[in-house]
Amino acid sequence: MFDIEFLGTGNAAQVPVWGCRCGACAAARADPSRRRRSASLAIHSAGGVSLLDAGRTDLAERYSFEQVRRIILTHFHMDHVQGLFHLRWSEREEAIPLYRPDDEAGTDDLYRYPGVFDLQSPFQPGVEVKLSDFSIVPLALNHSRVTLGYVLAADRFRIAYLTDTVGLPSMTRDYLKRYPVDCLIVDCSEPPRSEPPRNHNDLTRALQLLELVGDGTLILTHISHRLDNWLDSHRAELPDRVVVARDGMCVRQRADGLLIE
Amino acid sequence: MFDIEFLGTGNAAQVPVWGCRCGACAAARADPSRRRRSASLAIHSAGGVSLLDAGRTDLAERYSFEQVRRIILTHFHMDHVQGLFHLRWSEREEAIPLYRPDDEAGTDDLYRYPGVFDLQSPFQPGVEVKLSDFSIVPLALNHSRVTLGYVLAADRFRIAYLTDTVGLPSMTRDYLKRYPVDCLIVDCSEPPRSEPPRNHNDLTRALQLLELVGDGTLILTHISHRLDNWLDSHRAELPDRVVVARDGMCVRQRADGLLIE
Repeated sequence: MFDIEFLGTGNAAQVPVWGCRCGACAAARADPSRRRRSASLAIHSAGGVSLLDAGRTDLAERYSFEQVRRIILTHFHMDHVQGLFHLRWSEREEAIPLYRPDDEAGTDDLYRYPGVFDLQSPFQPGVEVKLSDFSIVPLALNHSRVTLGYVLAADRFRIAYLTDTVGLPSMTRDYLKRYPVDCLIVDCSEPPRSEPPRNHNDLTRALQLLELVGDGTLILTHISHRLDNWLDSHRAELPDRVVVARDGMCVRQRADGLLIE
Repeated sequence: MFDIEFLGTGNAAQVPVWGCRCGACAAARADPSRRRRSASLAIHSAGGVSLLDAGRTDLAERYSFEQVRRIILTHFHMDHVQGLFHLRWSEREEAIPLYRPDDEAGTDDLYRYPGVFDLQSPFQPGVEVKLSDFSIVPLALNHSRVTLGYVLAADRFRIAYLTDTVGLPSMTRDYLKRYPVDCLIVDCSEPPRSEPPRNHNDLTRALQLLELVGDGTLILTHISHRLDNWLDSHRAELPDRVVVARDGMCVRQRADGLLIE
């Protein structure tokens, strides 16, 4: 069993964007609940906290060293990794496993000086890995760097976290058709566009993934201020089974289904 | 005229160090005034704020876009740069000048995607640059990457900020002997050692720089939890003209001298 907490639901610029005077950014400055930090999750299970990406820079204040069981990265763009650069200098003897895609470069000097993080062999797409409290299946995504999405499974629920990506590679799409999930969390950085953005989904491409969740839920994350502005006047147009993530939102496993609150 | 504010006075690990159970780290968790963030300054002058290094990751919350006149980097280690990676995605048309040492690599993809930052031609050591409200003279330091210290001067006061460094190159030492400063802020990462650390000053090497400040003040910064522990039982042994920086401390220019508070 595991619960999921959205530590961040923003894109690399976050919301509010520095210096931006748009409606969504002004609203996020006035109302902290509208703020979006770097997209990332905390997976809470009996064994502790697994961080899925580490773009927040206040992780040391949020979690004690003892709480963090492992860190799982989708890819090595700075907005998904930047929270690790001072944590690595912990002087604890116990190492924290760092799971990652097969990207030779990493971010800046993190591979050279991983400090307290124990770099695991890179994940292979489609190959399930059983962790202590849940299992994960890495899935290839379409992004400007090697990037993995993850299906998280335990007991009877399966949740997929697929960001950053524009559309999905066919093998990932095929896997999700064959092994459906109850909840699909996807990159939806931009409002609807006629042409897809280069490295991220717009709302049009994100909604095309509804077909992969059956009667489950599609959760949108990695959201820009542009999408927030669009949502401020169009939210009612979203299909019923679509939820816009917000920082602090949780997906909890209950006997009668997933509870999103 | 300009005043200086210490935004951070810690080393790359900051204080408290994540997971550390030493006395200094426990004290910093209990008393926020003992916390040390990444070493950096805000220089406040009539024209706005000049950031000297950008290791704090809450700069967007501290300063509006309009307040920040320029950013000046000592070097491209992550703990001095990490606060820029989401600020760069500001969509404002006005660029913010980014001054820097002559380091071809930069940090991660910052040179490739500088965003709102306008990369200036690299500084040359010893060559004065006049900015709007004050002038700076870059000085070479001894560190594992190309690193510059800076003498900041306006009206009658001259203040030097020399971190990260172990000792000083002879040309920097000669410059400071020829053009003395009223206040010298130096890297003092470690408690006294018999052998110097590899890339930073210990207290022994930092105190050797007292000879460069005449009857002025030597301020210690870039402090590790190891030095904080040492200070907790040895602070009385420090010479009179030595001040240990703390986050939030200011050096203000007054008619009758520098006010440190």
